[in-house]
Amino acid sequence: MVLAGTAMAQSSEPIQPIKAAKITEPAKVELGKKLFFDPRLSKSGFISCNSCHNLSMGGSDNLKTSIGDKWQKGPINSPTVLNSRNSLAQFWDGRAKDLKAQAGGPIANPGEMAMTHDLAVDMLRSIPQYVSEFKTVFGNDKLTIDEVTAAIAAFEDTLVTPNSRFDQWLKGNKKALKPDELAGYHLFKKNGCIACHNGVNVGGNSFQKMGTVESFATTSTAEGRAGVTGQEADRFRFKVPSLRNVELTYPYFHDGSADTLPQAVNTMSRLQLGRAFSDAENAQIVAFLKTLTGDQPKLTLPILPPSSDATKRPQPFE
Amino acid sequence: MVLAGTAMAQSSEPIQPIKAAKITEPAKVELGKKLFFDPRLSKSGFISCNSCHNLSMGGSDNLKTSIGDKWQKGPINSPTVLNSRNSLAQFWDGRAKDLKAQAGGPIANPGEMAMTHDLAVDMLRSIPQYVSEFKTVFGNDKLTIDEVTAAIAAFEDTLVTPNSRFDQWLKGNKKALKPDELAGYHLFKKNGCIACHNGVNVGGNSFQKMGTVESFATTSTAEGRAGVTGQEADRFRFKVPSLRNVELTYPYFHDGSADTLPQAVNTMSRLQLGRAFSDAENAQIVAFLKTLTGDQPKLTLPILPPSSDATKRPQPFE
Repeated sequence: MVLAGTAMAQSSEPIQPIKAAKITEPAKVELGKKLFFDPRLSKSGFISCNSCHNLSMGGSDNLKTSIGDKWQKGPINSPTVLNSRNSLAQFWDGRAKDLKAQAGGPIANPGEMAMTHDLAVDMLRSIPQYVSEFKTVFGNDKLTIDEVTAAIAAFEDTLVTPNSRFDQWLKGNKKALKPDELAGYHLFKKNGCIACHNGVNVGGNSFQKMGTVESFATTSTAEGRAGVTGQEADRFRFKVPSLRNVELTYPYFHDGSADTLPQAVNTMSRLQLGRAFSDAENAQIVAFLKTLTGDQPKLTLPILPPSSDATKRPQPFE
Repeated sequence: MVLAGTAMAQSSEPIQPIKAAKITEPAKVELGKKLFFDPRLSKSGFISCNSCHNLSMGGSDNLKTSIGDKWQKGPINSPTVLNSRNSLAQFWDGRAKDLKAQAGGPIANPGEMAMTHDLAVDMLRSIPQYVSEFKTVFGNDKLTIDEVTAAIAAFEDTLVTPNSRFDQWLKGNKKALKPDELAGYHLFKKNGCIACHNGVNVGGNSFQKMGTVESFATTSTAEGRAGVTGQEADRFRFKVPSLRNVELTYPYFHDGSADTLPQAVNTMSRLQLGRAFSDAENAQIVAFLKTLTGDQPKLTLPILPPSSDATKRPQPFE
């Protein structure tokens, strides 16, 4: 009864715990995992979804901006794929409404995987084991890009990180947080960080201007939400990143300009809240943020079906 | 008794079955696995051992020659890491005597991972979880490149692929091979392929000249064993590649010039044996070769310890 009372109290918090993945279509998820790890979806045969959303590294690449085909420098920091199912939209500017709509983007982007959807589908159709798996999962012989992105999205939909110490605390385990971490959470709430970083993903549920009190100095040309809406008011408005697993997803901001959490907290408090935390306060907030690291997806590395003699070979140097 | 008799007969074959891995130091293997998958061992933070020895793709990258730092084109086809423990030496020219000696090479090669051993060690020492794991595994606080390569080699030592259909046949299960596959094996033995491709790895146990009867036409500048021994007689002598999992390790030859197994069999029979197989014979040999695909290592994707605030950041574009 005491526990139930505590749980009820915590349920009034502005952050909600992450739920474990419920896998209802295991064959589709398994196919999506193969596709997520398959570099043949890139022109070079070298870049897979996992290259920039590395599931060994918090679902990100830990680079300021990503590396694309022929080592092209990407325009923006690669957002984590972890818990991205809970975001209101995908990409920093929210131009894709869901994971399925997102998945086709990098494949066909000349600066990223540099394929076309037709070439990707031709490649998969040339591989008997893929043909057979698509047929099993989708019940037809079509093998379309729509099925490819649906399978990838089904896999990504399972990439959640429940059971963080903060979630344990939310669920009523008062011992899950140390005093400094709890103090950090209180600072986070009291000073307004929570205004944007709330909900199940501690972010990811609104677009906000980067630099509200003070403007953000950056060499990045990313214009944010304005590129989608065409509205001048949306310039430099970006999707608020999730702070789940933020300990693993450095560097921070859309331009990757903050290497560390103390830096990121300093910059955000100055630009968005017009205040400076003391070093002790900063350390407490950082300590709280590190309690948001959840159980990482436990994945068996997929074994990819081999190309057939008819499969078009990658072209990394052409 | 019949089975025992069969097993005895097969044991006189010039190819021996692969044994399953015996893991005696699990913590060392687990540390080695993390290092194998860690792109922070490269200057760019983008290339890991697994990039070119991809364990989802037969321990190779399925490219003619590999992609290195800043998309440099590698000089040679990336050999599979699978079963490489059984090779008489490592690299195509055998310049490393064992897996441990090999592991340090790509890390410090400016055309591959482009780090230095000092930088790699500094990076690892800046990450508390790595420091702790090295201490547990090696019983000291040193964290040296020698320990790094020892751990990677310990992991690679477990990457074997037992239980191929051919090995099942070798062990006495006559039904494991179909008639065409067995006919292919007889052709493989009768025509002399077996002279170089024998032993537990079906290769990997001698250096041989590429182009004995007819010279090999290639744009590759790799000179083979001569680069190690300085002997003119060793020019174009390369380590005979293992044919284990050859279905997965396309393209073939040190220059990756053969895209498919039928092509590779044609070229090898012409250049090394001075003979041409009929299409039917070629197909039988290829069918046999595909029975050499064993159980791929079943690996849980490692979760890498996050960088600390002190960890030097990758430099992909500098």
